[in-house]
Amino acid sequence: MLYDLTVVQFSKMLKNLSVILEKGEYFANLKKVDMAVLLNSRLAPDQFNLIRQIQIACDTAKIGVARLTGNLDTVPKHDDTEITLPELQARITSVLDYLAQFKEEDFANAAAVHVSQPRWEGKYLTGYEFAIEHAIPNLYFHITTAYAILRHNGVDVGKKDYLGPMSYKS
Amino acid sequence: MLYDLTVVQFSKMLKNLSVILEKGEYFANLKKVDMAVLLNSRLAPDQFNLIRQIQIACDTAKIGVARLTGNLDTVPKHDDTEITLPELQARITSVLDYLAQFKEEDFANAAAVHVSQPRWEGKYLTGYEFAIEHAIPNLYFHITTAYAILRHNGVDVGKKDYLGPMSYKS
Repeated sequence: MLYDLTVVQFSKMLKNLSVILEKGEYFANLKKVDMAVLLNSRLAPDQFNLIRQIQIACDTAKIGVARLTGNLDTVPKHDDTEITLPELQARITSVLDYLAQFKEEDFANAAAVHVSQPRWEGKYLTGYEFAIEHAIPNLYFHITTAYAILRHNGVDVGKKDYLGPMSYKS
Repeated sequence: MLYDLTVVQFSKMLKNLSVILEKGEYFANLKKVDMAVLLNSRLAPDQFNLIRQIQIACDTAKIGVARLTGNLDTVPKHDDTEITLPELQARITSVLDYLAQFKEEDFANAAAVHVSQPRWEGKYLTGYEFAIEHAIPNLYFHITTAYAILRHNGVDVGKKDYLGPMSYKS
């Protein structure tokens, strides 16, 4: 289940983010506005701008899965140098490619693994707690914030763009 | 695990939302601004305002859990008449009380249950899919949007308020 909650759902949400950003680009072209204006927008002066929200969403996905599967040493590095939309889309694609390498069996020990971060001062969470309390809420936070920045600027995005396609059955 | 992802984590996030709203009230008092101004704020003219974001977050939690556990017939009703912050806090408390009645064993069939909504035109999701693809992303979406509306208005809230306390171990 942790595989579905992270690899599968994080991949879906990053694809949704990519589509939302395309709608931002469409809006910028329509309004004859530089896409850089949207990418550097934020909702408060001391909030990370859209570029940074995208970068953190990508990192939350790749590092979350790397930590749960014990692959933190080999997680692909990104230097946070993206400025343009194509560069940001390439980063999303890079993370999607990384996530696509994982299989359900890679998560055999994910719930029990100890996860820590330098800022946690030696404390840890189990992988189960880390996924539910930290990685998942953070991933949705940054995708929603990216969405909200574009929504606030007038981009025509809606809840369906955020949720993406559903596994409906009849 | 669906119990932890919904009952436990949704309750935690609603409590975090309650604290975030208290910070909004503190800000309104400090700035001598009517709290109604914040509660009626939105990030775009065609977006739901803060009141509605809180109501939907509450409904996503209560209806999500009711659907997964087969209790949709007895879920408490709320008439969306809240105008003031105390009324909204009371609604959050009411949903927290409802969620607190559930136990892990109530979720024995949750993954397999068929979930549908009138707007899905007869299609359904399994409970497992509904939780992961619909209820969880929606809950975080509306909590983050409520947070973003207050953040945009200058309220001093941060990521820690959104995530809430972690189960750190040493």
